[in-house]
Amino acid sequence: MHALKPHLTEDQFIASITAALGVPPRALRVGIGDDAAVWKPARSHVSLITTDALTDGVHFRSELTTPQALGHKALAQNLSDIAAMGGKPVLAVVALGVTDVVDEAWARAFYGGMAALAKSAGCAIAGGDVFRSAALTLALTVVGEARPNRVRLRSGARPGDYACVTGPLGLAAAGLQLLQSPGLRSAAGLDETLRRAHELPTPRLREGQYLASLRSVHALMDISDGLSTDLARMARASKADACIDLAALTPSPAIARFPNALEMVLHGGDDYELLAAIEPRALAHVARRFAGRFGRKLQVVGRFEQGTGRVLALKDGERSELAPLGYDHFSKSVN
Amino acid sequence: MHALKPHLTEDQFIASITAALGVPPRALRVGIGDDAAVWKPARSHVSLITTDALTDGVHFRSELTTPQALGHKALAQNLSDIAAMGGKPVLAVVALGVTDVVDEAWARAFYGGMAALAKSAGCAIAGGDVFRSAALTLALTVVGEARPNRVRLRSGARPGDYACVTGPLGLAAAGLQLLQSPGLRSAAGLDETLRRAHELPTPRLREGQYLASLRSVHALMDISDGLSTDLARMARASKADACIDLAALTPSPAIARFPNALEMVLHGGDDYELLAAIEPRALAHVARRFAGRFGRKLQVVGRFEQGTGRVLALKDGERSELAPLGYDHFSKSVN
Repeated sequence: MHALKPHLTEDQFIASITAALGVPPRALRVGIGDDAAVWKPARSHVSLITTDALTDGVHFRSELTTPQALGHKALAQNLSDIAAMGGKPVLAVVALGVTDVVDEAWARAFYGGMAALAKSAGCAIAGGDVFRSAALTLALTVVGEARPNRVRLRSGARPGDYACVTGPLGLAAAGLQLLQSPGLRSAAGLDETLRRAHELPTPRLREGQYLASLRSVHALMDISDGLSTDLARMARASKADACIDLAALTPSPAIARFPNALEMVLHGGDDYELLAAIEPRALAHVARRFAGRFGRKLQVVGRFEQGTGRVLALKDGERSELAPLGYDHFSKSVN
Repeated sequence: MHALKPHLTEDQFIASITAALGVPPRALRVGIGDDAAVWKPARSHVSLITTDALTDGVHFRSELTTPQALGHKALAQNLSDIAAMGGKPVLAVVALGVTDVVDEAWARAFYGGMAALAKSAGCAIAGGDVFRSAALTLALTVVGEARPNRVRLRSGARPGDYACVTGPLGLAAAGLQLLQSPGLRSAAGLDETLRRAHELPTPRLREGQYLASLRSVHALMDISDGLSTDLARMARASKADACIDLAALTPSPAIARFPNALEMVLHGGDDYELLAAIEPRALAHVARRFAGRFGRKLQVVGRFEQGTGRVLALKDGERSELAPLGYDHFSKSVN
């Protein structure tokens, strides 16, 4: 790739980005180009805000991905946090640290990937900041909104609740493994699915809004750092233990061929499925409605019980504490 | 400094930050620790959002500053954008990319510097993200709010309007020069003032709210990249020319000793004063009220006229176009 032209100013760079992003949605009163963007929040809603950053060599490897995928993923990760609160997105702002490998074509592709997902999610790109950086770095912030009684925190799980996820886990970890070891092959036709799970994750916005609208859903969060890490966070916040029956935790057929499939399910990050604590007597009804509405299976991964915030694994009739290996293991593997 | 303990997890790091930040203001319904923060926007206000990033070696040099000052400055810069819209801040979120020089003491000092300014500005620190980074990087996003009829854009300047600034310019550039050349001395007793102007800039929030409340103030923005660059931005956005009478642009006594004082006034960044376009017949009245209210002088730096977005400099009776040297010159000098 060619470097940014040395005479290209920040203002010119921003002008080319703005063109790539198209016309801002009507919710936005002032978009890119002033000191701040301006919008009118919906009355009788609360506002939500989340920020998440990605940097080359830690969260991704620029040589293993495309700028489109990177733009998509950076936004998807933040939208997933809005989904996890039961909200809908309003707008995003983007701080982009560029290196010499970034040229205008790269920037157009990056913002194009982000804009496509933003459009499908009803989210405006409202502004940002571009700066020279030692490593390619993307820090995104997304604002969303929700009805006050439909916000679900991670601290609401009660003993007896089932811990459920909105889709199969471990696919993104398997996709990453395929990207890192080009010689590796999964079952025919599945490689592309797994790579997409890693590169182009889908934030579960509609699923989150639906689950947060149900009184029987007591807690909600997203799984970004792996089930073992994120379930432990929900357990700690809820002051309860969570028990996983390993025998019942069957990996999806898409990753069954991988020798470390169960580890991927337990510790693989980047899946961005939602984790919900659901009242036992409502579970069957919710799962049926969920499947009918979204064509996806709400899968039970564990159960909450009285406790102190641990995750316990049940194997061969024995219970032992499960270490939260999600963040550590998988972030190191990308380094 | 000691490196972060290798076994310190992101969760533990966040817990220590949260403790340093203290109790969140009441406006915040959910603060740090869930997937997103939650707040209730004021009814009949519009919301504002801005994002700005700083990275070591480009925007600052970690060896020339303290973590407190860095935390202050990163927030001040974003609050200044809210001031420039006539708004008041509500909350900030912080994405922090840490290197091995960051330890817990550093993080506490950094968040302490930020929290002190946030408190005085009525701004909550609502959440963030911490990640390993090739260079120390801070990406902040601030949300504010304003009455819809009191938002002032940079595009409203009209031919005839005076271009005014809320305080002396060039002080931050002089402070940077002092930091970079420890042998250099300005007038006795002023060094500390100049260093503070560079390291601990004050966002002009009350001044911005006041100016935006006046019908005679047609446009408002902040001066972060230098007068020549930012005045050109206002001129372009307003489709007018701006003319600076260089003879009338006397540097403040605090920097008069520097041989390049006029260049500092014209091109020096990081002052974070506000630039306002004010109707001619209201100028004297506004300036008097401004001085009475804030104890600061509203200084005329130029005048808008029919044109195409250029900045013209008047010198010895001749007019010539002024190159916007702010961003380029001073960002390179930090490299």
